[in-house]
Amino acid sequence: MTDLLARLGVALPILQAPMAGTSTPALAAAVSNAGALGGVALGATDAAGARAMLAELRAATSRPFNVNVFVHAPARADAAREAAWLDALAPTFRAYGAEPPAALRPIYRSFAEDDAMLAAVVEAAPPVVSFHFGLPDAARLAAVRATGAVLLATATSLAEGRAAQAAGIDAVVAQGWEAGGHRGVFDPAAPDERLGTFALVRLLVRHLDVPVIAAGGIMDGAGIAAALRLGASAAQLGTAFVACPESSAPPAHRAALLAGEGARTVMTAGISGRPARCLANRFTALVDALAARTPPVLPPGYPTTYDAGKALHAAAAARGEHGYGAQWAGQGAPLARALPAAELVATLAREWRESRVARDA
Amino acid sequence: MTDLLARLGVALPILQAPMAGTSTPALAAAVSNAGALGGVALGATDAAGARAMLAELRAATSRPFNVNVFVHAPARADAAREAAWLDALAPTFRAYGAEPPAALRPIYRSFAEDDAMLAAVVEAAPPVVSFHFGLPDAARLAAVRATGAVLLATATSLAEGRAAQAAGIDAVVAQGWEAGGHRGVFDPAAPDERLGTFALVRLLVRHLDVPVIAAGGIMDGAGIAAALRLGASAAQLGTAFVACPESSAPPAHRAALLAGEGARTVMTAGISGRPARCLANRFTALVDALAARTPPVLPPGYPTTYDAGKALHAAAAARGEHGYGAQWAGQGAPLARALPAAELVATLAREWRESRVARDA
Repeated sequence: MTDLLARLGVALPILQAPMAGTSTPALAAAVSNAGALGGVALGATDAAGARAMLAELRAATSRPFNVNVFVHAPARADAAREAAWLDALAPTFRAYGAEPPAALRPIYRSFAEDDAMLAAVVEAAPPVVSFHFGLPDAARLAAVRATGAVLLATATSLAEGRAAQAAGIDAVVAQGWEAGGHRGVFDPAAPDERLGTFALVRLLVRHLDVPVIAAGGIMDGAGIAAALRLGASAAQLGTAFVACPESSAPPAHRAALLAGEGARTVMTAGISGRPARCLANRFTALVDALAARTPPVLPPGYPTTYDAGKALHAAAAARGEHGYGAQWAGQGAPLARALPAAELVATLAREWRESRVARDA
Repeated sequence: MTDLLARLGVALPILQAPMAGTSTPALAAAVSNAGALGGVALGATDAAGARAMLAELRAATSRPFNVNVFVHAPARADAAREAAWLDALAPTFRAYGAEPPAALRPIYRSFAEDDAMLAAVVEAAPPVVSFHFGLPDAARLAAVRATGAVLLATATSLAEGRAAQAAGIDAVVAQGWEAGGHRGVFDPAAPDERLGTFALVRLLVRHLDVPVIAAGGIMDGAGIAAALRLGASAAQLGTAFVACPESSAPPAHRAALLAGEGARTVMTAGISGRPARCLANRFTALVDALAARTPPVLPPGYPTTYDAGKALHAAAAARGEHGYGAQWAGQGAPLARALPAAELVATLAREWRESRVARDA
């Protein structure tokens, strides 16, 4: 067992990605109880929701788990851009018998400024706390660290990895371009080299002193074994867990994910306002069409755009069309399996061990 | 040793990517003599050049080697688009005291239609022949197969991998999005899911019956070990070999590649007309600026655009500016090392073996 696994308190080098809106306390507990590190995310809830979620998780496992927060730069209102976005979506709303909302709101607060959420996290004192989209300021970081939590942060580049290490983060989650869901890039307006898992993990392992957790495109035991060979101390899998019965993924999301070779993903900022990888569907096709207009119609920032996306999904779903959902998935989607979480963890562990034996024979 | 390595006739699971314009017979021979599979590419030459290259290579090694050909859809002239591209580049030509060429030519023929090149390849009967950008028709493929060559083909998706397998290709090179140089996608006008090495290799290994060779972002022994864990039978490295003294990379290309963390890559079709990954430089910045115009100025097809790019590079280089070169490199560029090819192969082999021991302890 590596130092990182000892610190995390898990036997297996496997983390279940804490997917906001998709993971649940039941999923996290099942994963943790099976010997990997389960996780929940607070990015799509408020302090009260977080308290309820963490209480449910504590009741369901005595094992360590990971609690993730989104530390994005707080939304800046841009009335003109928001109105243009709503105008552009309006015909699609009307096609499903609905009207777009009159205005958009930044529906989630950032951990960077949410004092109530900080208090809820400190009070719950989770064994592991992970930061996505950036790092909190020194005072907030110190408050979380004082609970004794092991601290993780997502990095998509060496610069972000270095920033996390300098802030005293215990281990960095190297999130490759393949990864599903929200890309953790600190500044979505800056150029993004879009480093794949292979290059990113190797780069961070070579240049950082803290342990690296590989994420992006890892779906099975062979992927876990490969991540460890790259020098990662563990692998984080998200898409692999989306089809578990314990996740909150809606049926249409599961069906699209389990379409086999039809499960094709794209990176888009049009659903939430930040780049995120999801299954190509009616929504991503609409976003692409708007971007192809002259001049292009581009989404407002995160999470304001998400307000529009959720309304559009609700309107379409009410008429039976589920292709406007945020169907997050990584490039490994065609390898997804629908297994109960405990069985999936056991399968991953068995595949990982078998692949070690097979390849070294 | 796996079946693939036995068929290729090499001891190490390492292929040196046959980089058109950058690899040389000396590089390929040094790699093959060191126990890996060296390679040269014929995509930037004609039948006479190929004969000379292959004679030089045969004289320098008695070991197996790989000869790569580009099988792109032959260029279609588009006078308006070509003229617009030259117009857009003209101010940059003039900044270096030159005029753009009056017209562009498709400077390289495709193996899909080049009978003289087919004759040269059949005559030389290389031990391994690899196809990039697509597959030749059945008659040409049969002619090459009849020489006894082991046949490889690049695939960037499962569909391309399936096409290669159906054509009777012996092993597929799974080229991830991280890879440097020309992306092997069969149809550059079709949507590209941009699969990273991690997801692509795993997907092809799971779904194809032929062996898979992993490519993209692999720079050292740990990367090779990881590729094998993903189920690949070997790893192909290109960028790792660019800084070898035996390559033909110009000094500015080497210097940019060895800039460490400054070695940042982008995928661009603006240099040659097909998507290719290179170090960000003045040329890629210019291409980006042209694409950002309203309406966007986009490059003609391959290899016609390359004619303009080579002329621009020559004009700028004549005035001492080397930032318009085609400085191909993959995302692993910051991990590049300047070692003689034989020493690099020995280092890769040692690192690979050490990483097996270290990780299994």
